[in-house]
Amino acid sequence: MNEQELLKILELVKLGAFSPEKAAERLKHLPFEDLGFAKVDHHRALRQGFAEVILGKGKTPSQVAQIVRAMLQKKDSHHNILVTRADAKIFAAVKRANGRLAPRAAKFHENSGVITIERNREITGKGSILVVSAGTSDIPVAEEALLTAQMMGNRAEPLYDVGVAGIHRLLEHRENLTKARVIICVAGMEGALPSVVGGLVAVPVIAVPTSVGYGASFGGVAALLGMLNSCASNVTVVNIDNGFGAACVASCINRT
Amino acid sequence: MNEQELLKILELVKLGAFSPEKAAERLKHLPFEDLGFAKVDHHRALRQGFAEVILGKGKTPSQVAQIVRAMLQKKDSHHNILVTRADAKIFAAVKRANGRLAPRAAKFHENSGVITIERNREITGKGSILVVSAGTSDIPVAEEALLTAQMMGNRAEPLYDVGVAGIHRLLEHRENLTKARVIICVAGMEGALPSVVGGLVAVPVIAVPTSVGYGASFGGVAALLGMLNSCASNVTVVNIDNGFGAACVASCINRT
Amino acid sequence: MNEQELLKILELVKLGAFSPEKAAERLKHLPFEDLGFAKVDHHRALRQGFAEVILGKGKTPSQVAQIVRAMLQKKDSHHNILVTRADAKIFAAVKRANGRLAPRAAKFHENSGVITIERNREITGKGSILVVSAGTSDIPVAEEALLTAQMMGNRAEPLYDVGVAGIHRLLEHRENLTKARVIICVAGMEGALPSVVGGLVAVPVIAVPTSVGYGASFGGVAALLGMLNSCASNVTVVNIDNGFGAACVASCINRT
Amino acid sequence: MNEQELLKILELVKLGAFSPEKAAERLKHLPFEDLGFAKVDHHRALRQGFAEVILGKGKTPSQVAQIVRAMLQKKDSHHNILVTRADAKIFAAVKRANGRLAPRAAKFHENSGVITIERNREITGKGSILVVSAGTSDIPVAEEALLTAQMMGNRAEPLYDVGVAGIHRLLEHRENLTKARVIICVAGMEGALPSVVGGLVAVPVIAVPTSVGYGASFGGVAALLGMLNSCASNVTVVNIDNGFGAACVASCINRT
Amino acid sequence: MNEQELLKILELVKLGAFSPEKAAERLKHLPFEDLGFAKVDHHRALRQGFAEVILGKGKTPSQVAQIVRAMLQKKDSHHNILVTRADAKIFAAVKRANGRLAPRAAKFHENSGVITIERNREITGKGSILVVSAGTSDIPVAEEALLTAQMMGNRAEPLYDVGVAGIHRLLEHRENLTKARVIICVAGMEGALPSVVGGLVAVPVIAVPTSVGYGASFGGVAALLGMLNSCASNVTVVNIDNGFGAACVASCINRT
Amino acid sequence: MNEQELLKILELVKLGAFSPEKAAERLKHLPFEDLGFAKVDHHRALRQGFAEVILGKGKTPSQVAQIVRAMLQKKDSHHNILVTRADAKIFAAVKRANGRLAPRAAKFHENSGVITIERNREITGKGSILVVSAGTSDIPVAEEALLTAQMMGNRAEPLYDVGVAGIHRLLEHRENLTKARVIICVAGMEGALPSVVGGLVAVPVIAVPTSVGYGASFGGVAALLGMLNSCASNVTVVNIDNGFGAACVASCINRT
Amino acid sequence: MNEQELLKILELVKLGAFSPEKAAERLKHLPFEDLGFAKVDHHRALRQGFAEVILGKGKTPSQVAQIVRAMLQKKDSHHNILVTRADAKIFAAVKRANGRLAPRAAKFHENSGVITIERNREITGKGSILVVSAGTSDIPVAEEALLTAQMMGNRAEPLYDVGVAGIHRLLEHRENLTKARVIICVAGMEGALPSVVGGLVAVPVIAVPTSVGYGASFGGVAALLGMLNSCASNVTVVNIDNGFGAACVASCINRT
Amino acid sequence: MNEQELLKILELVKLGAFSPEKAAERLKHLPFEDLGFAKVDHHRALRQGFAEVILGKGKTPSQVAQIVRAMLQKKDSHHNILVTRADAKIFAAVKRANGRLAPRAAKFHENSGVITIERNREITGKGSILVVSAGTSDIPVAEEALLTAQMMGNRAEPLYDVGVAGIHRLLEHRENLTKARVIICVAGMEGALPSVVGGLVAVPVIAVPTSVGYGASFGGVAALLGMLNSCASNVTVVNIDNGFGAACVASCINRT
Repeated sequence: MNEQELLKILELVKLGAFSPEKAAERLKHLPFEDLGFAKVDHHRALRQGFAEVILGKGKTPSQVAQIVRAMLQKKDSHHNILVTRADAKIFAAVKRANGRLAPRAAKFHENSGVITIERNREITGKGSILVVSAGTSDIPVAEEALLTAQMMGNRAEPLYDVGVAGIHRLLEHRENLTKARVIICVAGMEGALPSVVGGLVAVPVIAVPTSVGYGASFGGVAALLGMLNSCASNVTVVNIDNGFGAACVASCINRT
Repeated sequence: MNEQELLKILELVKLGAFSPEKAAERLKHLPFEDLGFAKVDHHRALRQGFAEVILGKGKTPSQVAQIVRAMLQKKDSHHNILVTRADAKIFAAVKRANGRLAPRAAKFHENSGVITIERNREITGKGSILVVSAGTSDIPVAEEALLTAQMMGNRAEPLYDVGVAGIHRLLEHRENLTKARVIICVAGMEGALPSVVGGLVAVPVIAVPTSVGYGASFGGVAALLGMLNSCASNVTVVNIDNGFGAACVASCINRT
Repeated sequence: MNEQELLKILELVKLGAFSPEKAAERLKHLPFEDLGFAKVDHHRALRQGFAEVILGKGKTPSQVAQIVRAMLQKKDSHHNILVTRADAKIFAAVKRANGRLAPRAAKFHENSGVITIERNREITGKGSILVVSAGTSDIPVAEEALLTAQMMGNRAEPLYDVGVAGIHRLLEHRENLTKARVIICVAGMEGALPSVVGGLVAVPVIAVPTSVGYGASFGGVAALLGMLNSCASNVTVVNIDNGFGAACVASCINRT
Repeated sequence: MNEQELLKILELVKLGAFSPEKAAERLKHLPFEDLGFAKVDHHRALRQGFAEVILGKGKTPSQVAQIVRAMLQKKDSHHNILVTRADAKIFAAVKRANGRLAPRAAKFHENSGVITIERNREITGKGSILVVSAGTSDIPVAEEALLTAQMMGNRAEPLYDVGVAGIHRLLEHRENLTKARVIICVAGMEGALPSVVGGLVAVPVIAVPTSVGYGASFGGVAALLGMLNSCASNVTVVNIDNGFGAACVASCINRT
Repeated sequence: MNEQELLKILELVKLGAFSPEKAAERLKHLPFEDLGFAKVDHHRALRQGFAEVILGKGKTPSQVAQIVRAMLQKKDSHHNILVTRADAKIFAAVKRANGRLAPRAAKFHENSGVITIERNREITGKGSILVVSAGTSDIPVAEEALLTAQMMGNRAEPLYDVGVAGIHRLLEHRENLTKARVIICVAGMEGALPSVVGGLVAVPVIAVPTSVGYGASFGGVAALLGMLNSCASNVTVVNIDNGFGAACVASCINRT
Repeated sequence: MNEQELLKILELVKLGAFSPEKAAERLKHLPFEDLGFAKVDHHRALRQGFAEVILGKGKTPSQVAQIVRAMLQKKDSHHNILVTRADAKIFAAVKRANGRLAPRAAKFHENSGVITIERNREITGKGSILVVSAGTSDIPVAEEALLTAQMMGNRAEPLYDVGVAGIHRLLEHRENLTKARVIICVAGMEGALPSVVGGLVAVPVIAVPTSVGYGASFGGVAALLGMLNSCASNVTVVNIDNGFGAACVASCINRT
Repeated sequence: MNEQELLKILELVKLGAFSPEKAAERLKHLPFEDLGFAKVDHHRALRQGFAEVILGKGKTPSQVAQIVRAMLQKKDSHHNILVTRADAKIFAAVKRANGRLAPRAAKFHENSGVITIERNREITGKGSILVVSAGTSDIPVAEEALLTAQMMGNRAEPLYDVGVAGIHRLLEHRENLTKARVIICVAGMEGALPSVVGGLVAVPVIAVPTSVGYGASFGGVAALLGMLNSCASNVTVVNIDNGFGAACVASCINRT
Repeated sequence: MNEQELLKILELVKLGAFSPEKAAERLKHLPFEDLGFAKVDHHRALRQGFAEVILGKGKTPSQVAQIVRAMLQKKDSHHNILVTRADAKIFAAVKRANGRLAPRAAKFHENSGVITIERNREITGKGSILVVSAGTSDIPVAEEALLTAQMMGNRAEPLYDVGVAGIHRLLEHRENLTKARVIICVAGMEGALPSVVGGLVAVPVIAVPTSVGYGASFGGVAALLGMLNSCASNVTVVNIDNGFGAACVASCINRT
């Protein structure tokens, strides 16, 4: 039931065609989502609208290409478009299908499997987001976080290869750390980086465990547990390898 | 917003005091739960109404006693009352507080820690529920299931101590098994009973793993995994020691 | 020992050729399965007879094709035939081997890897089964459940993509939910859908965790645990990705 | 090395008593923490200074009392004082030892084991923090979060008993949810609440799994995994039962 | 149905009172367990009859005492009686209740919580059973195995404190090892003993992991996994702390 | 030091060339394995000598072929040869390299990946070994056990497809079960078969969990735990999929 | 067989009473442990001889007291005596039983449950051992390590409360770290300390996870995994809470 | 800020251009790592400088080749170069790119995936390192340890195939064991070897679990747990398959 229907019922009441009781009965059963709940949905649109996001994994190249096409054709939206966990084939399909629609060429970030179509360079985040990572093998996840944060309208910068076993490398960048409004901290193996970073700053640190490692790293479980048990009290955690999610939360924080 | 408020708004529209637009605006923001959603709630009441249930664990004896008192004082309800995971102290408090209100004395079933106050002997379940258990140490959980099923208006009977290592004991009761409309199957250790029972009947079997055992039973995990991997295709599973939940589902099935 | 043999012994007793003692001795050792136990077997046949089922996984295409051929050649059976966890090669083999026997062409449902050969459109289930799923990646498992339910003689309908993070989508379909007699609820990741659905309805909800997700989803374990710990008391659980099993139980419930 | 020592060396250089080379050698080895690093430490003090915090668990009552006494005697600090995981004995010791120092009596919040000594009612957080919890047994952890948030200078309010199996109770409070700047979401069992809440709001949701439950809840692991796999992208997670940590992060976010 | 009933039916056939068809019908439904299956039951009795066994844990002292009394009063049985996982209270109750019946006093083996009532000293096992254990804390489980083996009619001897970190202590007893017909090998911590023992002998080695240890021993899991992965091919494993079960199997092997 | 060396020293003593003291010194340091320990080694040879065994997995085809060749060329040994976990390539290499040496052609058992070269048909086991398995997918592991048992000089027979969900199929073969001296019981999924079989017989049952299954079977862990928690007391367990190991132990028991 | 027996045999050979063959036969069967193997045992004594160690846990106070008494009465040994995992009752018993024997009073270190009886102050370790710990609750385990190291003849010093979330506290003690020859690093929660310490030094770091923490620390598993996955390559790990073991290894390293 | 900058500031002070206060202010904020911390870095270089190490896994062949080239071109360094977890393609790229630079050809050790470029044969380790391994499938990990130890300037020797199920093979090499200064002990399956070896020697034993095995070996977890629970007190553990790490620690110990 949309607003028109609601108005019609009310007009009928006004005209005396419907008794209040009959109208009440009708209204009592109307699907609530057409009333107040649209607001929620709207919020949802607003929130995610900073960027249109497609999870590439589990979709065929042509499925992704079609969704991108539909997004590009929506007249009134100029959000950035982000495809995560994509590959070269998906990128080829996206380019083929959308050549004309996306004049500024879509970019494929091979390392992280992210496709970006930038249509809006406005910065809406209030501060900056720093993406810190430990080892070189954590970089794909870090880059997913970095690109997501940027496409969602944030100033975001990387600070890579500052693992805890060479603590001085991290400490050299103390100033960078303290300038950020939110820090995303990506680490595999023992996952100790967020604790050290958390101890050096006064802002929220979002920890992303990565599945990097072997043996008793158990695909990122060691890092995940390490982060959940962080002795720094400004650390929260997202799922293993979830660079995208970390950037969503960081963006959320950076907008408020 | 309750129905009165809704009627008042509609009257105002009828009287011309409110334009339909203004009324629509008002209505659009009214809490939906006062409209259609009450229905859901009502369903909920209907469903759980077969018995009023209190989880004794984590509440003080006097808290439980007060809740029971409130239930007994509701004039228009004659549901049975069930307290699960109770102990002797809780029972004493319940008896003390409700002596006069509950003429047919509340009963404490020590084995399973269940308190029952029977106020309604009507049988609403269509068939009967059979509660099968393997070892003697599984009986407390089985009894929780049995009493719950009975208090929710079902014919329910026990069939205990029919473990798979003495398969003939189970087979002797083949007839009982085939007469039930739903079977609850309670077993610890290797949790094999539901598979054997499931293979002997054509009705749904609800498997309840128990935390009985030691060492590699891991507090019921061995039984739980066994049941989830049952080779009989009419078996579903509830949480470890959750006799109450099994009886709720069985009751649900038996009423439809 | 079949009935003829039994009758022969009894005739010999009648004729005096066997003393009762000698006959008793003989009978005491006869394989019981030829007596009462056949009944059990019969039940089994009756139960599974709603559809002939073949697990495709672990069998070669030609093995599956031969089993299907044998089923199609049984004169007196007109059950539907269902092959689960099949692939394109198996389907090709089935079609090649059974072209003439299966006039209404066997269908291959690529998404779920299910092959159906419909021979019997009779609806034997009393109510309808609703298959609810959360994300798009849960659809293969949901479809396995849906097709299994349909082939076993049930009215069954899908309600897909109603995850808990967009609760209004689910609530829009409240009416569908309340009309079903059994609900199968398929969800990966946090596995929260059955709890929400269970709270909205008064019928049994069979929860199917899926292996969808990554990192700390541990191949469906997160969803499985979530479902086992559901705070809705009308939820039971089957194994990860076991859409087939869920439909068997649902069918079982829907026939009683 | 403090600033005086540094100045002394520099004076000696100025006076020609030290060659630049000699001074450089000296300075190269001075403990960095006395220079730039104090800044870090200062940050740390600033951050945690919103409230002085003592972890009661693992300390004797008299140890806690002495630490509180020392805090109360610091002349220049008027931070609130918070003791977490305390008990009645600790509270008695704190009261006995600090009677005069703490004119506004220290309060013991029995449910959550928190002792608060409020000395500063200034609100420094920009928005408000909402603490949402599912079942009644989650309340102790929720209260720890609530009190921590309040003592750290935030407007913080509870919204309890809004579990996902009765989704309408949660939806009734939609407005409260959308007014918060940060939401802390406390849930045990299947841990589904943060996903539903996260889908209704545009602000960060900090999920706290609780150890409430039994059997396959594995002391909060089921809830933890559910939250880590949340399909809502604005959810991050802290350790099981870590209400304090969640409030620290929320406070961190609310101040930026 | 017992043999008398069967004979009665057959007599009726003989007399012509029952047609063979009617008798066949009757017999087809008779409970099979009264026919052939009794044999199975009989086997069971025979097998366990070497000793009457009561699991003390989970029973009250008076329950145990009554069961023992019943066993002692059975005229035609002179099996040894074994109570496992008992304590001093159970032993007191057993002694009180059975003083006169058990002239040779029941013995309580405090270390292992075993009560033995020896009534039959006949050795029925063909060879001897050696119970080997690693550390002193493994002795309770080893003793449970030893006493069980002895009460079941086996020559059984201990060989304790021969852990693998002092391999020469084990090698000194090489001769003892090679004389046994079955070896029970009890070990906690890393559970390495069965591999070493298995490499020294040509007989079956039954490995019993114990819950001895701390930290990453995970209540015996480390030892259990070690034993399951033994590189000696004559090793099988029973549950953690299951000395009783190991002795049952050993006795089984020693009798064949 | 071999016996010749020992004798030489003793001759020198006899001749007076060595004082007893000097000889004692020499002997004290001689490697013990050349003395008494050879006995142990000999035992080892005797034990495994029933069949020469090669683990194919992890070796190249030509490595396996060379080892087989070496075995065939040993003049004084006529043991059967067994290659486990082999594949078609390994078999081809073995045949190519050993064509003439192995007149009775080596056989490749594709299902179980076992290669057998039979050179000795003598039966040395005292009774017979029965290999029971549950589902058709357990057959490869069962066959590995069966062939191993046969090649080690045992009468061994299969009894397949007797899962617990169709208990009558198992009971039909009661007689087979009771005739065996040792039973190997192979089962995946819930691993319940050994408990049922163990309850029907008085001989040792060696349970082999298989990695068959999906989801919560966790690669055989569910079956493994089920078997370790068996309520039948004559059941022991070997590693997941370890058909070979089960047959070794069974053979061990059958020879004593 | 001791040396006397060996000499006797050799004398008999010399005298011609034994032929070399007969002597060889005798010697071939003599227990090797009386020959060369004593050496091994001797090594063992030497190694552990630095301190006599008793594990208090699992022993009664009087058992511990008797063992200590026996140690004190051995005339020729002046090793230090160490009782780990003891309590006040054990200490009382030790003091009572050994008052006169141990003139320098035995000391009970309540924090760590260690009893020390120092009889030998010689320092045999070549360098010094530094015991670093993170939080105050890790101190009991750290102290067990410290006292063990000291009683085994090492210079050993503590460096406590230098957790990674306040990295400057650790860095202040850089000099201490670099002076040690072996570092024992004790940490609970995320167990990140050894990685940071390992990155700052060039000596072996022995990491001891502690069971400190709650929720997802899983009794020290999080710390254990973190340490096993350390990105510093000079870190090895011992069992959870095993301060004693870490000190044994450190002492081992420090003596070589 | 490097030393030149520091000197410049100090010169300015000397010249009176900077007041000591101004200089102090400047110096207070200079990045500490350019002062004292360089020492740490230097230490790090010293430590790892024994060999330049590249982790091949996760890098492309050309990336590895370029890093090697850069190392070879550094004029003042003649460290050995080690590439771990490499394959034939990486080796080809390394050879192609560095043909002339590395006159003594780089060697590829196929078994362990290690590439070595030896440029410095100096032995800097004080004693020798013995690498002991159990089964033939553990050899790749053992070889990684062996080559790493050798390339880091240690005398290092292998002792392979001495598993605990044939204990005499290990005991034959007792002398080798006692001559080593550090022992690396590599074992899969039950991981019992370090306990036995640890009991025979007085030096540190570094245990490396391998992922060899199947079923309940859980990719090396069984061996890992076994080693962490070792009853020998001179055993420490590194991550599963971490031969490289074990050799680093061993080298660390052997140099001190």
